[in-house]
Amino acid sequence: MKKVLLGHGSGGELSHNLISDLFIKYFKNPILEAQTDSALLEISSKNISFTTDSYVVDPIFFKGGNIGKLAICGTVNDLAVSGATPKYISCSFIIEEGFSMTELETIVKTMADEAKKAEIQIVTGDTKVVNKGKCDKIFINTSGIGILDAKHKEISSGKNIAIGDKILINGDIADHGMTIMAARDFENFTTNISTDSACLNHLIHELLEANIGIKFMRDATRGGVATVLCELAKNANIGLEIDEENIPVNESVKGLCEVFGFDPLYVANEGKVIIVVDKKDSEKAIKIMQQNEFGKNSAIIGEITESNRGKAWLKTEIGGKRIIDMLAGEQLPRIC
Amino acid sequence: MKKVLLGHGSGGELSHNLISDLFIKYFKNPILEAQTDSALLEISSKNISFTTDSYVVDPIFFKGGNIGKLAICGTVNDLAVSGATPKYISCSFIIEEGFSMTELETIVKTMADEAKKAEIQIVTGDTKVVNKGKCDKIFINTSGIGILDAKHKEISSGKNIAIGDKILINGDIADHGMTIMAARDFENFTTNISTDSACLNHLIHELLEANIGIKFMRDATRGGVATVLCELAKNANIGLEIDEENIPVNESVKGLCEVFGFDPLYVANEGKVIIVVDKKDSEKAIKIMQQNEFGKNSAIIGEITESNRGKAWLKTEIGGKRIIDMLAGEQLPRIC
Repeated sequence: MKKVLLGHGSGGELSHNLISDLFIKYFKNPILEAQTDSALLEISSKNISFTTDSYVVDPIFFKGGNIGKLAICGTVNDLAVSGATPKYISCSFIIEEGFSMTELETIVKTMADEAKKAEIQIVTGDTKVVNKGKCDKIFINTSGIGILDAKHKEISSGKNIAIGDKILINGDIADHGMTIMAARDFENFTTNISTDSACLNHLIHELLEANIGIKFMRDATRGGVATVLCELAKNANIGLEIDEENIPVNESVKGLCEVFGFDPLYVANEGKVIIVVDKKDSEKAIKIMQQNEFGKNSAIIGEITESNRGKAWLKTEIGGKRIIDMLAGEQLPRIC
Repeated sequence: MKKVLLGHGSGGELSHNLISDLFIKYFKNPILEAQTDSALLEISSKNISFTTDSYVVDPIFFKGGNIGKLAICGTVNDLAVSGATPKYISCSFIIEEGFSMTELETIVKTMADEAKKAEIQIVTGDTKVVNKGKCDKIFINTSGIGILDAKHKEISSGKNIAIGDKILINGDIADHGMTIMAARDFENFTTNISTDSACLNHLIHELLEANIGIKFMRDATRGGVATVLCELAKNANIGLEIDEENIPVNESVKGLCEVFGFDPLYVANEGKVIIVVDKKDSEKAIKIMQQNEFGKNSAIIGEITESNRGKAWLKTEIGGKRIIDMLAGEQLPRIC
């Protein structure tokens, strides 16, 4: 079986072979093929979004995806929730000596497929190989650039949020985190749970083009939905109230959360976005979202309130009310 | 001693504390302080350069620098050699659980200092923490964006190179690689060798503004000067000839290379750029370079030839001539 060697990260002949036989073969586009150290890009707007994320998920293959899928979708989503149209992505690998070349090819192929679906180009990259035992299989960094229409500049800050605005989500929560958990602890256990990892840029684009009042968006990854809600309440200095019974959770995921003692609100997602929409447009937004393949289970889960500024509140299924706190400590390391 | 915990990479409360108490404290700028997932940037040109690199150098501290210095300078240089003015940088950390918080602070402070000198802003970032033993101390990815004047668009391709053009370098070669080698193998050995790691964007800017015929630039990092020359000859389909006796090498570095059996031409640099200049402008270019603190030992080391297209030749000090090959295999893993 072919393996990744230290020489593949040397910058010399083996590096060049890896670039042409693998990365250019799958990522194929004229900008990348120029093989300059920097990609030269023509940008059609003076406003852009720029983001970065490193992916260290363990295991690297799991139901519904792999580390490569996360690396593309995660960065695409970070750009999309800022109101931008994701365009260009970089891709930097840190690989453990001896890693299977076949597995690397599978990951690279997945990245190429996701990039194609999301209509973005992988335009520049880097490969480092470290001695055996000095990293765990493979880590991937992706950084991305998106084109931002000036009228969407306030979406990431949430400055336009008003009392009464509705809080929406595009489907079931906690799928990704519990998929990883199941893959780690029940290797020979079959569940129907799989990652929700997906590029949401098309869904978000449909909403932004529908001429409705989108006030804020944020993807709920590490720290889960709870962390997004806490940050939103604090940063925008607004109150918000969530109805637990309206939060979509798959029954199997809910069951697994109970087994492990996790609150689904804190479990990571990789294809879920929290959206704050003008009250009058919320039903229209839900309809648009439900027509997209990644929004079938979209729901209105709460609203912005006058009271309790800076705090996120949860109305529980049994009729109580409690503050949603930030995640303290670490729940699931290496979830993405 | 304070240590990095898994929770610092959770996306929850500890992550937020790390961001505000360390990253924002040192990297301080309004774009970063907005703390949105994507940085919102205003770009003054429709042409931009975009690049990425991951840094895995071992050891992480060495004479004249540390991994943070490499991470800033390397990405700044990749942008600068494309003819662009480096503007914005992202910074993504993968940290081993238990890593010293004091060492992290030293690295972050170095990055902030270098960014300030290079006049670039660190605008977005990410932190992942992996369990002890799953990475080696700390890896850093930096991705960068530079503004590219349309008139410099062909510099990275080298399309304008002509027969007779001169090949220049901004100083002594092989310092970085041999510094790392000495740090690994002679921990208690004092040498006067230190890394050449430096941001070259100001030196390059001075050249580009001098209205001289700059045809090509490339920083000579992994694979050394030899790899840049081989790639240039091959990609631009030109011949080139280098005079070994004109290549500046520090005597101690030369000695250490002999001890280890390395050819300095293949050893990594982190602050050296190969520049192809119109013959008539080469002396003027050298004068400009020598006035910059990172160009004092600048020299003309060779020229573009009519014969031997696709090949790089070396005239040796003893009067012979040989082809410069690409680096085969791996010379020094984890050099950057």
